Amino acid sequence: MSEAIVELTAGQYNLVYNLFSLTIAAMAAAFVFFIGARDQVDKKYRKALLVSAVVVGVAAYHYFRIFQSWGGAVAGTEMAGETMMYMFNTAEFNDAYRYADWLVTVPLLLVEVVAVLGLTKEKERGFIAKLTIAAVAMLALGYPGEIASDTGTRLLWGTLSSIPFVYILYVLWIELGDAIKDQPGHAQVLLRNLRLLLLATWGFYPIAYLAPVMGIGEATGLVALNVGYAIADITAKAGFGLMIYSIARTKTLEGGGSGQPQAAAAAE
Amino acid sequence: MSEAIVELTAGQYNLVYNLFSLTIAAMAAAFVFFIGARDQVDKKYRKALLVSAVVVGVAAYHYFRIFQSWGGAVAGTEMAGETMMYMFNTAEFNDAYRYADWLVTVPLLLVEVVAVLGLTKEKERGFIAKLTIAAVAMLALGYPGEIASDTGTRLLWGTLSSIPFVYILYVLWIELGDAIKDQPGHAQVLLRNLRLLLLATWGFYPIAYLAPVMGIGEATGLVALNVGYAIADITAKAGFGLMIYSIARTKTLEGGGSGQPQAAAAAE
Repeated sequence: MSEAIVELTAGQYNLVYNLFSLTIAAMAAAFVFFIGARDQVDKKYRKALLVSAVVVGVAAYHYFRIFQSWGGAVAGTEMAGETMMYMFNTAEFNDAYRYADWLVTVPLLLVEVVAVLGLTKEKERGFIAKLTIAAVAMLALGYPGEIASDTGTRLLWGTLSSIPFVYILYVLWIELGDAIKDQPGHAQVLLRNLRLLLLATWGFYPIAYLAPVMGIGEATGLVALNVGYAIADITAKAGFGLMIYSIARTKTLEGGGSGQPQAAAAAE
Repeated sequence: MSEAIVELTAGQYNLVYNLFSLTIAAMAAAFVFFIGARDQVDKKYRKALLVSAVVVGVAAYHYFRIFQSWGGAVAGTEMAGETMMYMFNTAEFNDAYRYADWLVTVPLLLVEVVAVLGLTKEKERGFIAKLTIAAVAMLALGYPGEIASDTGTRLLWGTLSSIPFVYILYVLWIELGDAIKDQPGHAQVLLRNLRLLLLATWGFYPIAYLAPVMGIGEATGLVALNVGYAIADITAKAGFGLMIYSIARTKTLEGGGSGQPQAAAAAE
């Protein structure tokens, strides 16, 4: 974003501030849950839960930094009649934390999906390689648009970034489709829902990305972008991890794994 | 480095700042993963994973300090025409954290390699002693060059530091070569890759070390040094640990250890 002072009302400023704090709490809560819930699932799905924990742990760290950065970007306050306005210096607010976070967490989210399927090592590696490369390309192409100050540049890079995104959808829907058909009954339904959750939450990011160019005003755009990203992050990381847990738990109870849940629990 | 103010563009300053933050996150993420993944491998390889966790945990701590030090070394900002420049005081930026980190972590990385081989206690101790002494010598000889301000001194100590480095390579390739030949099929391939990863990442450090004397300009040299070290550290510690995990997991599944993975779990 360009160096500029944006005037935020106290309500707008505090909405984002409080939502960031809530996001830290939600991610930390999810971290504790995923770490603790590992012994509720069969041994072969524990890696998926561990990766879920890593994802929300990394996100908690980054939201702590983002929260600090939001607080530090206030250049001062001013009274506009009766209303207190926050002079927010967008150049001081560090957007890059979010991209650093996504670089670590987005490939791991895709690893979670593959890990919970319980494929052969060979197949698993192939899918993880493809999806990781596509995820990194998607993020790397989005970043130049995010830091651009003009609409054209933002739209150009946003469009380029959509190409690997569509490829990821192709892999999840078409290539992984067969693997999902082989899953036991109820897990199949949950895996379909997981893909839909991913589509719905990831579809939220482009909307937040475009918020600043939709002509809804600089202050509203800034607030919409940050509220949108925070809600999308909670859903796509903590919510997604909960669905992964739910699938792993279902497969454990249905005995779709290599061992009985009782055996796995007894082995602890 | 000599006491001097180096002028960095906002882009250069922020690149290093954000990369340091990303490194903290990556190391902390790897820490959680290695601690959590211990029950995925046979009991005899758990020490290797625990040591991996210690390495990235120590690195996360040091990168937190380095990150703070980088932020604190800015003496002020100045406008050069349209561009904001950061006045960076290199005397305030503490390089020694990195050497403190390496003194702890580099010998431990070599312990990881030996530990995952599953040798006899006797042989293991011999290799660890040799490799630890060489690693400490390599770092102790590199440090005087790192803090020197003139090219000649930097090159002299850099060259001396290479001698124990070459000895480490000799031990890993020649002396450990036989031990690697005795490993089960797929683990052998992974162990060869592990050595190559070590060579590739450790080969990166001398390049970063020499960046300030390559005549690429003081600001660019400073940025190149720090970007290079951070990327090398992530690869050589978190990436290396992931390969150790992969080898331990493969040996566990192939039953190349003392027991079945189920037996190992039952032993919990």
